[in-house]
Parts: sequence; C-alpha cells; structure tokens
Amino acid sequence: MHDIRKIDVMEGVLDENDHIAEHVNRHMTEHGVLVVNEMGAPGAGKTTSLRNIVKHLDVKPYVIEGDIESDIDTQALNSIGIETHQINTYGSCHLDAPMIEHMTGHISFNEPGILFIENIGNLVCPAEFSIGEHVMMLISTVTEGSDKPYKYPLAFEKADIILLSKVDLIPYLDFDEEFFMKGVRALNKDVPVFKVSGKTGEGYEEVARWLQNKAKELGSGE
Amino acid sequence: MHDIRKIDVMEGVLDENDHIAEHVNRHMTEHGVLVVNEMGAPGAGKTTSLRNIVKHLDVKPYVIEGDIESDIDTQALNSIGIETHQINTYGSCHLDAPMIEHMTGHISFNEPGILFIENIGNLVCPAEFSIGEHVMMLISTVTEGSDKPYKYPLAFEKADIILLSKVDLIPYLDFDEEFFMKGVRALNKDVPVFKVSGKTGEGYEEVARWLQNKAKELGSGE
Repeated sequence: MHDIRKIDVMEGVLDENDHIAEHVNRHMTEHGVLVVNEMGAPGAGKTTSLRNIVKHLDVKPYVIEGDIESDIDTQALNSIGIETHQINTYGSCHLDAPMIEHMTGHISFNEPGILFIENIGNLVCPAEFSIGEHVMMLISTVTEGSDKPYKYPLAFEKADIILLSKVDLIPYLDFDEEFFMKGVRALNKDVPVFKVSGKTGEGYEEVARWLQNKAKELGSGE
Repeated sequence: MHDIRKIDVMEGVLDENDHIAEHVNRHMTEHGVLVVNEMGAPGAGKTTSLRNIVKHLDVKPYVIEGDIESDIDTQALNSIGIETHQINTYGSCHLDAPMIEHMTGHISFNEPGILFIENIGNLVCPAEFSIGEHVMMLISTVTEGSDKPYKYPLAFEKADIILLSKVDLIPYLDFDEEFFMKGVRALNKDVPVFKVSGKTGEGYEEVARWLQNKAKELGSGE
C-alpha cells in the first residue's frame, strides 16, 4: 500500500515535470541557447569545471546555480564576471523543470549561447528529473573511487558527456581507470569522457569545444 | 497545488517512517545493539571507514550495506570476515525504517554489539529519514571541499559524530579547515569531529573507542 501510493504520486509528478521540461527546451532552442544540466556528487568540482569551461568559450555563457542553501558559488562566479542566477531549494534534493521555467522567465537571453545549470550535489535524484536540458553533463571525480558507475548507474546511463575530474590527484589514489571505464561503457557505449583538472586546467578546452559544437548544431539544425 | 500535494504525502510518509524507526530502535536496544547510521556523499569513504573502525572494536560488529545497485562493498566486507547484509534500493535515494525493520528481522543478534548501517551515498535525502539509529555518523571528505556544512546543513546538524576523511590528501588540496569547522560549529555546537585516513589508518582507533563507549552506555542505561 505504502509503496503503491508513493509510486502513483511520483509518476504524476514526473509526467508533469517532463511536460514543463519540454516547454523549457523548446523555449531555449528558439533563443539559440544550449541548455546543459550539470550533475555530480557534492564536491565533485561542478563550479570549478564551469569556471574553467567558460574561459574557453566563444559564445555567451549563462549560469543558474542550484543549491539547497547558500549562494557561495553564485557569489564566486559573479565576482569573476559570469552572470549567475541562484535557485535555493531549501531541502529538495534536485532541481525540477518548474523551477527552471520560472527562473528562465526572468533572464534575458539577448544572444545565443550556452545556459549551464548546476544541479544539487547528488548522484541520485537529479538523474530522474529532466529540467529541459539538451545536454546532461556528468562530473565524476577520481577521489570518489572507480566503482561509481556500478553504484549510481542511472546518472552514468543518462549522461551525454562525462568529465572525470581532479585527475591531478591520481598519483595519490588507488583509482582504477580501467574498471571505471568498463562500468561506464556497460551503461553508455558512446558517451565521450574527458579527463580534467581544475588545478592544472587540463582538458577543459576540449570540453568547451565539444559543447560549442553542440550549440552550433542547435543553431543550424532546429 | 503541485507543491502542497507533495508536502502532504511527504509528511505522511515521514510520520509512518518515524513510527517504524522507533520500533527498530527499541528492538535493537533490547538486544544491546547500538545502531549507527553511516551517511556520506558518494565516495566519501564509508566502507573504508567501516573496515578500519571494526579492526579496533572489542564488541561484535554487524553490518547492513545500502546501495542503489551492486553489492561490491558487501562482497568486500564479507571477504574479510565481517558478516554483512545487503539492501538494494533500485533507485531510491535513501534507506528508510521499513527496509531496516525487514532486514533486522532476518539477522540473529546473538550477542550485544554495534550494527553499522551504511546508507546510500547522498548528503541530502538520508538526513531526512530516521532508520532507528542511536548514532548518526557523518563522513565528510577533505576532497569535497570545505564548504560542505554550508551547502548541506541538515546532515551536519543531525550528526552525532563527524569523521573528516582522507586527511592524507590535505597537502595536495586547498582545504580550509578553519572555514569547514566554523560551518560545522554554527550548526552543531558540540559534535565530536575526528580526522581519519583510510590510507594511513589514523584516527579510527579513537572513533572505535567513542562508539564503544556509546554501546556500553546503551547496555547500562536503558
């Protein structure tokens, strides 16, 4: 009983969410703005990755930061000149499409570009809720260990691009890259995986180029 | 509308959960078994910490491993002689009291000791659901960065003991311990914080002693 009730409500919520997510996606496509849903565990390096990707972009970046509480990352990004908007969920473990619809209604997308949406630090719940993205970008860090694809399969299955972050720390860890990649490939045969480091800056230029190509496809194709 | 419906259902689920959690707690107290709810982000070092704490215990350890999928950690713990039972949630982002009630009904607690329950790797949802624990043990790692108490306050507020893990990596990071501790103290004035490292083994003896004292209080007090 208990479980059936929960599932029924959940399905209704997901249907409603998907409907609004499609609307967000259409709206942003019309503006020529690629929407990137950035997911990762707490401390995976989501904000650091954003900051490093933006350095290499030749299209305009827009950023929405999702946090349960605090606006530490938004302050940091605004302070280096990246226009960033904050959503606080006050307890909720993921962003959802209605939150993004509401927020994008308040941002003026005056030129084409890329909207990065940094989701709540969580490898589970955000993977279940579309927020209107064109690209799901997953950040997984070497410090979390090489078994993450096996333990959190949905996030790895849904990813359109994976950043393996903090690779500068590999010498101090027992990270088994072969085991990690085997897990990734079992779930997601063709997803590109980029090794990056916020410390050395390596890898981010390639990520930026990949995203820019997606943004250009959006402009020409739809 | 949408939000009100979600909250109503959520409150009902939480009430029911708390009721069963109390039942689990009473049942385990009668057996002289201290229940430790181990929480932390993906890859924080939950299983590694378990393994290291158990080495220093002079009471019997029981372990329940919670994972969305896979039984990698259960296999690893059983292989070194720690009797471990697996719960797979297949999507659910946290353990709940009914799952634990069901599982503890199948374990024979033939002597007093400590039951470690490793929750799903997630800093958000597990903090909301009591599973009948006497002690909430939070693992936070230095690789996640020093801003975690500010971003995930509920977990830090509810913790009875905090392990700051992977401290051997501090020389390679920009971890600001003062900022971290300031955040912890703002939420949880007296919680003990132990620095630990799975690599060097440091800190775990003190954690084991702290838990053992709690287990003894349980035996004498209730």
